[in-house]
Amino acid sequence: MDESAELITRLVFQLAVILIAAKLAGEAFERYLKMPAVLGELAAGIIIGPFALGGWDVPVIGTLFEHVEAGVTIPVSEGLWSIAQIGSVVLLFMAGIETDLRQFLRYARPASIVASGGVVFPFILGAVLTVAFGYADGLSDVKALFLGAVMTATSIGITVRVLGDLRRLATPEGVTILGAAVLDDVLGILALTVVVGLKETGDFSLSSVGFVAFKTLGFWIALTGVVILLARHISAVLGWFRVSGAALALALGLAFLAAGLAESAGLAMIIGAFSIGLALSGTDLAHRLEEPLRGVYAALVPVFFVVMGMLVDVGSLGRDVWAFGLIITLAAVVGKVAGSGFPALLAGFNARGAARIGVGMLPRGEVALIMAGVGISEGIIGQDLYGVTILMTIATTAIAPPVLAVLFRDEAPGVRRTAPAQDAG
Amino acid sequence: MDESAELITRLVFQLAVILIAAKLAGEAFERYLKMPAVLGELAAGIIIGPFALGGWDVPVIGTLFEHVEAGVTIPVSEGLWSIAQIGSVVLLFMAGIETDLRQFLRYARPASIVASGGVVFPFILGAVLTVAFGYADGLSDVKALFLGAVMTATSIGITVRVLGDLRRLATPEGVTILGAAVLDDVLGILALTVVVGLKETGDFSLSSVGFVAFKTLGFWIALTGVVILLARHISAVLGWFRVSGAALALALGLAFLAAGLAESAGLAMIIGAFSIGLALSGTDLAHRLEEPLRGVYAALVPVFFVVMGMLVDVGSLGRDVWAFGLIITLAAVVGKVAGSGFPALLAGFNARGAARIGVGMLPRGEVALIMAGVGISEGIIGQDLYGVTILMTIATTAIAPPVLAVLFRDEAPGVRRTAPAQDAG
Repeated sequence: MDESAELITRLVFQLAVILIAAKLAGEAFERYLKMPAVLGELAAGIIIGPFALGGWDVPVIGTLFEHVEAGVTIPVSEGLWSIAQIGSVVLLFMAGIETDLRQFLRYARPASIVASGGVVFPFILGAVLTVAFGYADGLSDVKALFLGAVMTATSIGITVRVLGDLRRLATPEGVTILGAAVLDDVLGILALTVVVGLKETGDFSLSSVGFVAFKTLGFWIALTGVVILLARHISAVLGWFRVSGAALALALGLAFLAAGLAESAGLAMIIGAFSIGLALSGTDLAHRLEEPLRGVYAALVPVFFVVMGMLVDVGSLGRDVWAFGLIITLAAVVGKVAGSGFPALLAGFNARGAARIGVGMLPRGEVALIMAGVGISEGIIGQDLYGVTILMTIATTAIAPPVLAVLFRDEAPGVRRTAPAQDAG
Repeated sequence: MDESAELITRLVFQLAVILIAAKLAGEAFERYLKMPAVLGELAAGIIIGPFALGGWDVPVIGTLFEHVEAGVTIPVSEGLWSIAQIGSVVLLFMAGIETDLRQFLRYARPASIVASGGVVFPFILGAVLTVAFGYADGLSDVKALFLGAVMTATSIGITVRVLGDLRRLATPEGVTILGAAVLDDVLGILALTVVVGLKETGDFSLSSVGFVAFKTLGFWIALTGVVILLARHISAVLGWFRVSGAALALALGLAFLAAGLAESAGLAMIIGAFSIGLALSGTDLAHRLEEPLRGVYAALVPVFFVVMGMLVDVGSLGRDVWAFGLIITLAAVVGKVAGSGFPALLAGFNARGAARIGVGMLPRGEVALIMAGVGISEGIIGQDLYGVTILMTIATTAIAPPVLAVLFRDEAPGVRRTAPAQDAG
């Protein structure tokens, strides 16, 4: 067997174990623990990952994963990582397609208000605490700025999955959370871009920051706008094809294209995929795609969540890192729930709705994990703050789903008798 | 952007271009050239691949593919290659699920007869011609044995796709071709294993060859047998799961597991995937999986065919290599059509049926490409014979589909009035 065949053989064994473990753990979490299946998939990843069971040398079979060097950020092969990333693109594309665009625009104003609070409060808390506990020299230290930036993240993926499982995606709270989470990602990744730029060039002038901010936001609005304008034409062109599977393959091709453009422009791939899904959501095409997309989703998305769990090396964290991690986690919970919840009250939601929104914005998920990977590979943070970031990400991601399930259990409305502030047409 | 993000960004752009080019070319071939879409996908791969357009430096965007060293066998990234290979596993798993197992067993005898002839004649022709034209020193030269082995291959993937497009998979000829193609792969890869072993150890004793042959065939029969015995139980267990997408994810998990086991045992992954699909084909599960599997198929299988096209570096072939390539191609056509067709006559088919089967066995497709890759990476053949193998593979793969379409156009039966030899129950 040559080297390439060996790589692929290992990969198919990994995929087999990942898919089977994901569904076993997901079923156990949903059926017996009454928790969302996605947490089971994350837990499966931590347990079978290269830092845990997956690194054990089993007689005859050998190890499931390649040997992992200490301190490596992405402990899986390029092939497996690629498939996981493709899974995240499919996840967000599907989330976009299932979102009601008109409702999204109707709630653009509350979403913006919620997103702003959910960025500012956690950023300040993260930066200040990092300095206060001696992990950074001052507020202009890139380490402090990085921890601030990573605290602003909101996982669209986790929340979409949980709200989808609960069938609450189309509620005012659901749409507001989704919109605010997208805006948060744009703002959070903008902050990350600025921090990385500061580390590299030392140029933190207002004009330089402003230029990057303008470019990033401008690109996102332009991409979404262009696709929305072309949506009907795209739907018609894809409907013209007769070869089997053409509509799905071409729609995925467009999603990958948008993802690549977004990443090239300094945003995250998943934002591009979500935007194009959102733009196509109102078309005939979207209706035809839902069924076959469900198959692609079932095959690839569990790989993404399990691999995200695999990035965690629980054993490497020392006692003081755990302590600071707990403090940062508490700050991440308070900063996001309060930072997003209070603005939600101002935007017309009642206390119940504000709580749902605050908790819905809580999970950092894949966005923070991706940001943490950039941070350590760019040399901004070391193993200690990387461990802290991961702990905070896991904890917020684990806390939110069961709390959300409880908050959404009663079907009482989350808006005040007067409807929440909308962009009156 | 760190290195991993750059890899992934390039990959999503590649996937976008691959999916869009695959469907454009497939549509053009099917609608305007009246040829099977799969040939369009192969052609798209040759045109947009790293050896052609994909290697051009486009202003602003750069090149679509990484820079390719001369003589490299797999000129795409590990990520893209992995996704293409996963696509081939899905292709064969789906082919297995759509095969009628009882019909497959009913035609096991004609399939064995057809497969034997389709292995022996091409092997002898390939080895003798390689010596006759001075590319090998004698019949015991590994180069001659390698060209013999690669001539025995039959692509299950290409033929399944063409017969599926024509809706002729369930005919006596279709089932015989499929069965014989699977047996041919086992025999062909067995021959390859022996040639590689000979190159490495120099031990070509009858006992050593016999042991490898026994192991390979034994593994395949054992795997298929065990899964057939367990098929009803597997279907019941997978039906127990409630979490969304569990049945598909678990079935794919089993397909990957079988693929990995087959590769580890010295066979090809695709044989494992086909076997498990075949074993599950009679169950309730198979019926439930067909729709979601179609989505996974539409997303991944075009990537496999386009990447197979990308492996071809047309420009690197000199004039004498082209000449020998044409002779080998002629021999490959004659050897396979006659070698499989005459035995089909003995097995109860009429001239029409024998022609359909001979041509159906013709395309070497992915199996020969995989074997060629092993040959050059193990140092058995050089660039010249590699080019010859690729030319033969492309030509046989391109010739077969349109000829098959013509041969299957009239719906007259391909069996003699007395039914073809069957294993009477």
